[in-house]
Amino acid sequence: MTETATPTLTTDQVITRVADASAIWSTTAYAERARVLRAIADALDAAGADLIAIAQQETSLAGPRLRGELKRTTFQLRLFAREVERGAFVDARIDRPDAEWPMGAPRPDLRRMLIPIGPVLVFAASNFPFAFSVAGGDTAAALAAGNAVLVKAHSGHPRLSDATAAVIEAAVVEAGAPADLLRVIHGTQHGVEALKHPAIKAASFTGSIPAGRTLFDIANARPEPIPFYGELGSVNPAFVAPAAAGSRATEIAEGYLASITGSQGQLCTKPGVLFVPAESGVVDALRAAAVPGPAPLLNDRIAQGFLASLDALAGHDAVSVLREGAASRAAEPEATLLLTTADAVLDDPEALVAEVFGPVGLVVTYTDAADLAVIARALEGQLTATIVADEVDADLALARTLVPVLADRAGRVLWNQWPTGVSVTSAQQHGGPYPATTASSTTAVGTASIARFLRPVAFQNLPAALLPEALRDDNPLGVPQSIDG
Amino acid sequence: MTETATPTLTTDQVITRVADASAIWSTTAYAERARVLRAIADALDAAGADLIAIAQQETSLAGPRLRGELKRTTFQLRLFAREVERGAFVDARIDRPDAEWPMGAPRPDLRRMLIPIGPVLVFAASNFPFAFSVAGGDTAAALAAGNAVLVKAHSGHPRLSDATAAVIEAAVVEAGAPADLLRVIHGTQHGVEALKHPAIKAASFTGSIPAGRTLFDIANARPEPIPFYGELGSVNPAFVAPAAAGSRATEIAEGYLASITGSQGQLCTKPGVLFVPAESGVVDALRAAAVPGPAPLLNDRIAQGFLASLDALAGHDAVSVLREGAASRAAEPEATLLLTTADAVLDDPEALVAEVFGPVGLVVTYTDAADLAVIARALEGQLTATIVADEVDADLALARTLVPVLADRAGRVLWNQWPTGVSVTSAQQHGGPYPATTASSTTAVGTASIARFLRPVAFQNLPAALLPEALRDDNPLGVPQSIDG
Repeated sequence: MTETATPTLTTDQVITRVADASAIWSTTAYAERARVLRAIADALDAAGADLIAIAQQETSLAGPRLRGELKRTTFQLRLFAREVERGAFVDARIDRPDAEWPMGAPRPDLRRMLIPIGPVLVFAASNFPFAFSVAGGDTAAALAAGNAVLVKAHSGHPRLSDATAAVIEAAVVEAGAPADLLRVIHGTQHGVEALKHPAIKAASFTGSIPAGRTLFDIANARPEPIPFYGELGSVNPAFVAPAAAGSRATEIAEGYLASITGSQGQLCTKPGVLFVPAESGVVDALRAAAVPGPAPLLNDRIAQGFLASLDALAGHDAVSVLREGAASRAAEPEATLLLTTADAVLDDPEALVAEVFGPVGLVVTYTDAADLAVIARALEGQLTATIVADEVDADLALARTLVPVLADRAGRVLWNQWPTGVSVTSAQQHGGPYPATTASSTTAVGTASIARFLRPVAFQNLPAALLPEALRDDNPLGVPQSIDG
Repeated sequence: MTETATPTLTTDQVITRVADASAIWSTTAYAERARVLRAIADALDAAGADLIAIAQQETSLAGPRLRGELKRTTFQLRLFAREVERGAFVDARIDRPDAEWPMGAPRPDLRRMLIPIGPVLVFAASNFPFAFSVAGGDTAAALAAGNAVLVKAHSGHPRLSDATAAVIEAAVVEAGAPADLLRVIHGTQHGVEALKHPAIKAASFTGSIPAGRTLFDIANARPEPIPFYGELGSVNPAFVAPAAAGSRATEIAEGYLASITGSQGQLCTKPGVLFVPAESGVVDALRAAAVPGPAPLLNDRIAQGFLASLDALAGHDAVSVLREGAASRAAEPEATLLLTTADAVLDDPEALVAEVFGPVGLVVTYTDAADLAVIARALEGQLTATIVADEVDADLALARTLVPVLADRAGRVLWNQWPTGVSVTSAQQHGGPYPATTASSTTAVGTASIARFLRPVAFQNLPAALLPEALRDDNPLGVPQSIDG
């Protein structure tokens, strides 16, 4: 398989090259930047069959799933290219001089925009070998923002990482951009070395809470701390209101099972805990609904982690097995459902509302809907929280209580849809209070994610000839400018 | 003097009350929130004479300076009130469902806005007893964002802090808002205790690098880390280009001396280092220009710190005294200018480009203007960087090299104006790479500072009746909504 072009360089040497490329890329015109992003997308699409073949060998993910993921990945690059061309992402603000400014002193000519933060280190994820890996969302956002990228490849798909980087390098060079615009390194030690390197100005990560917290701590302990955008862990609780449970138990059960078995439950937005009324038919429907057959997990390490977490949860005194999947304790498990009560969750939320990466769901029966808000308030930070409800008085009353609590605890609140399948859009929010993410004021998905890799600079009283084009009165790029607030 | 209403509560009890107030305040309508902010501003203006009298006793700052600062403070509250009413600060985004979304899966109905982050802890500054203290910028931003505030008072003006809080409490209660919307605590230990408290969701700080870094580390070491917006230290270098040095040496010298002696040099944007051509008349003009007479520093601790830092800098082998102020080594010093060369700065930038809080400036002579970009590239992060230049070819050519380097190293780049006197506006940027601030992607001054105390939440497929008003199609608040990107 293709290797990166610079296999013999030290991490320090690779970073020096990436930093040089970043300096060039940061001054590349937006239209040109957009053209390069599209060239990368086109090249990845063209190489799709080869890349997917490698991904299948390395990850056990099915062909259709990987094809969909690659489509999402190249769509994302093109969406961000359009965003760069439009220029709203630089948040151009112009305050003209105002001698009468009521602060007590004249307002000077101030012009502020967001500029690239500098070289970005991306720690790739295991579960999305395309969309959260070498050519994934963090890379697309960092490149769109005007920064070069160093990717620490995930050990679950090293050959795919190198092959993807080779496709990108060829496309980038062909498009006239620096060859070192994106480089890949391998191995935890090299990743840590890069995270400590003074030339790296921001880092992103998608993975587990322990690994993410370790890296977050390293980023903050640097002599010059850098922003660390980590997506760590989330249980994504879902709450079924009584009327909905009564009116459409089967639909809810099928939807839930589809959501927790998609990609074999290895999605960061998998709704790991489902609250249902004790007296409803949802529990029976969950027992009866069809599930996909046994299938492998991403790799052996993840399979071992799944079995350990599943054993821990199933071994809890208050938990019983609602539905045992075939080979539920083997490397290729079928979905398993566990069962507990809201009282048990109130007693021991930490042990019961805990992420298990793989095809398992914990069904929690409640007898008093008022308990749900109490439980929601005690939740750790989440990427998502879901309400399944009918638009009838009782369910709406419950929802009116739950929505503000869930908005406080999660980055995305859903109504009658399941949280898996995160759309890449302008209004998407993928990030919530810790430990869902380490920076709850940002998103890892959607066009707003570009802002993570920018920082503001104001220019005071600068002559037009020295101003960035986005801040000039004649606005040659036609970017949106906010004038005088 | 007036004391806070709750002097006998523990820090934990105070925080619990502030958190309860925050929950109420976060749901208060924007128009109502704006009304309360204006009521606070009016009350502070009305109490101005009393408050300024206390401030003069505690800080040694002159009456006109304090009156100006109070005006700035109440202006800021009113400006933020207007910002809250306009609603753009919530960044409302609406993606309507799109079955043909080219990602490969339909786009759901997604609506995203910024919501209050939760109770904010503000560490007040010594040097602005109004504008960066109890009623200062961080407080105004946190309140505008919809959060209650706990202020850790600065030990330099404890009575003023309590008196300001009492004025605010009376105004807040009168306006019908929770009495615990703002509370003050005293003492480093209580501040640290509060910073570790799980109910506190963000913190801000203005002060020294060692103190700021200690608190930053504590904020990040929490089980649930929180954003820590620290403004730490900045030298704010200024670069005089050759033509300007030749054409207006006296004007430059006078402007520089006025900037470094304003508030006795105790401003975070004081231009501590001035680069001038060796063969220009600026050095002589600096020796000749008038300076204010001796005046006290804020307090004894700051005076001691000033003398120690001044001795360290003046004792450097490569530094000589350009102009010794009267009583320069006493508690009420006059401005002092020190002198060194660009070569010396290239040899030992860390020791020579170092913040000294007080009325001193280091004048650096250069013989080769090309050295300036090299020096600028080696700078630590800065709040500001200033270019003094004429609009003639030679100076403009130099500036074209310097501006991008300075934009990389500083949050604000100025042209022929001095950096002290930070205007509160929409396009202001007060924050730069570390150690200027701990979060270079945010600003501590201006309306953009409100965003520090917000976090995004997306609502997917929610019925209109459950949506926040800012995200509804009928837009009853009339906030700006970005629709379909």
